Amino acid sequence: MQTKSKPQILKVEEGSIVTPLGFSTAGLHTKVKRKRNDLGVVYCEVPADSAAVYTLNQIIAAPLKVTKQSLAEEGKLQAVVINSGNANACTGDQGLIDAHLMRDAVADLFSIKNNYVAVASTGVIGEKMPMDKILPGIGNLAPQKSFDAANQFNEAILTTDTCMKTTCFETTIDSKKITMAGSAKGSGMIAPNMATMLGFITTDAHIPHEYLQVALKEVTNETFNRITVDGDTSTNDMVIVMASGLASNNALSPAHEDWEAFIQLLKQVCQDLAMMIARDGEGATKLIEVNVQGAATDEEAGMVAKTVVGSDLVKTMVFGSDPNWGRVMMAIGRSGMTLDPETIDITIGPHPLLVGSQPTNYVEENLSSYLNNEKVEINIHLNIGDGSGKAWGCDLTYDYVRINASYRT
Amino acid sequence: MQTKSKPQILKVEEGSIVTPLGFSTAGLHTKVKRKRNDLGVVYCEVPADSAAVYTLNQIIAAPLKVTKQSLAEEGKLQAVVINSGNANACTGDQGLIDAHLMRDAVADLFSIKNNYVAVASTGVIGEKMPMDKILPGIGNLAPQKSFDAANQFNEAILTTDTCMKTTCFETTIDSKKITMAGSAKGSGMIAPNMATMLGFITTDAHIPHEYLQVALKEVTNETFNRITVDGDTSTNDMVIVMASGLASNNALSPAHEDWEAFIQLLKQVCQDLAMMIARDGEGATKLIEVNVQGAATDEEAGMVAKTVVGSDLVKTMVFGSDPNWGRVMMAIGRSGMTLDPETIDITIGPHPLLVGSQPTNYVEENLSSYLNNEKVEINIHLNIGDGSGKAWGCDLTYDYVRINASYRT
Repeated sequence: MQTKSKPQILKVEEGSIVTPLGFSTAGLHTKVKRKRNDLGVVYCEVPADSAAVYTLNQIIAAPLKVTKQSLAEEGKLQAVVINSGNANACTGDQGLIDAHLMRDAVADLFSIKNNYVAVASTGVIGEKMPMDKILPGIGNLAPQKSFDAANQFNEAILTTDTCMKTTCFETTIDSKKITMAGSAKGSGMIAPNMATMLGFITTDAHIPHEYLQVALKEVTNETFNRITVDGDTSTNDMVIVMASGLASNNALSPAHEDWEAFIQLLKQVCQDLAMMIARDGEGATKLIEVNVQGAATDEEAGMVAKTVVGSDLVKTMVFGSDPNWGRVMMAIGRSGMTLDPETIDITIGPHPLLVGSQPTNYVEENLSSYLNNEKVEINIHLNIGDGSGKAWGCDLTYDYVRINASYRT
Repeated sequence: MQTKSKPQILKVEEGSIVTPLGFSTAGLHTKVKRKRNDLGVVYCEVPADSAAVYTLNQIIAAPLKVTKQSLAEEGKLQAVVINSGNANACTGDQGLIDAHLMRDAVADLFSIKNNYVAVASTGVIGEKMPMDKILPGIGNLAPQKSFDAANQFNEAILTTDTCMKTTCFETTIDSKKITMAGSAKGSGMIAPNMATMLGFITTDAHIPHEYLQVALKEVTNETFNRITVDGDTSTNDMVIVMASGLASNNALSPAHEDWEAFIQLLKQVCQDLAMMIARDGEGATKLIEVNVQGAATDEEAGMVAKTVVGSDLVKTMVFGSDPNWGRVMMAIGRSGMTLDPETIDITIGPHPLLVGSQPTNYVEENLSSYLNNEKVEINIHLNIGDGSGKAWGCDLTYDYVRINASYRT
């Protein structure tokens, strides 16, 4: 069946969100946050075919409503503005007015149509937007195509994140080099449902926005929607992809022979960002990866994995390197998915603990020692079907409590 | 319609699980736990009509399987044995053999049929039962009808609980005094689904077991199933009610004119125990009560309340007395229940924060000061229907992490 070799997906080591052709960024400090940059923009020199996925929380922040409006017009975006420190959520009518003011200010700045502008916000919920700082800040945004400008932007989108999250990959389609990069913020209120935290992805691939939307939705379900920090789904989750088309490949669609390569490229970028978000969960010291096999369906495998990785008791077990593995079984059982209680295998790292639901004679010290690793893998086989799926999360620590007991004060 | 005054439900201040006619208890230390009692029994001098609800976790601990078998025979119990320190869950075939051995030992001790014996266990999951300690312990159980014997039992069922949980109420049915009492343990892995943690309820009411089962299921949904400590549903949750019938009222059924009084009596006992469990959640310093009104249905109101009270971000907000009330709105929005994002009211204590989804000008210091109380009330009105419901939980603290990062070690 294989008529030619599959395009390779390669990591671009020095890549950033401005590496794909056509994109530049800026970030600066408006003093909404104390120290770090708190306002940024991604700009594309041409209107880019774009797609977005949004939170399924029924309480939707004002900027998401404005972004949906923009995308609904032509499916194209040329600029995405984002502020951190204030989420502009639960801010009533004034919040919507403010989000529109931000959109209009950006359209003025670049002399583009206002439906080419998307707006994103992250930070405290329920406080009015400090527009006296944000509007002048927008006037000072001057996007550039440089590594430094990318970092200024990456810093501007963070809240309690301890590090910037950025990734870049490339592949070849129609003999053209296609580059894709992404920046994300995460940390708390992370249990994305369909959409997710904030993620900004740029690519120079040529792909009409309707197919880009299909690709993003498919990939989001297996990446951003498979991470959890605290089980709380934000009002502001959003991932936006902008495709400049400047790589000049033939237009991508599911009929294109390299469609799957494009999906894999997008998946690689999204999975990289998702794992970075999980690893940098508020207060986290360890990344937890749960692999589930033998489930009824891939979807069910993913749900089991996400239930296990989201269990407070599993998370504290990993934090304390306390080999209380029965909690993994408890979480599998409460997942609500199809299972046979008598056919379950559980392995943590290289240590089999349960085989066919019968406990093994594992050595407690070895398991405890494995749990000291910075990445902990929990492998589960349900032995009832062919479904498989992964999920990522982090441990629950004193610092998660400290950070969230005094987020505002 | 009211042909006579409703029976009053009165608190029995010195009451305990042995106050209802016919019941006695014992508790002792077998050294499975380091210091506190770890084995107990509730005994009834006659076979008592009984009912039980069990965890909906698909992974069900061995003692629950044995108890289901017992109750299925005649719907009557005369003794419930419980050990703490080991949950006998995820223990494979040996676990089931051990639970049967416990049942048989208790039947021998009291010279009763083994289907009159229920078995309950709580503690670490995935470790084999220390039968060398438990079987001799059972031989030493000598139930008595005294306040001290009740306390010995109440201590025997605890794990990380910091206090005993017991309550007692009485009412009058058919001119007979009907007493009902309960003891429970809770603390961690608390997010009961249909059934719950461990609860033992005794009453001298005369009520056939099939109606008792109906009553227990109805009441459990509005009490034990409305509490959460950490969102994790145990493999060992179970509530058992034993009705000795020694109060000699006419047999209760939904046709009895005081059926509702009996339901209220049972609800009072269950709600009291449920709130005690929430208040004594692992590491908790505060009880949180969420009242939801104006929902589509009572069921949906309860689900919204439980989502809010179970949110890690709401829980840390209460712990830190940090008035970050937007998190309440976030949790309402992710509950998945019917709502109109534009008609929501939120009040914390006496402080209205959101009216018709528009923020108020509340005084932050006053709200912060209110959050220092030991009981924090969050009132939500969705303004879309007549459904109402409550849920209870606790704050998320450093101590929750400490306790669960080193539960075994």
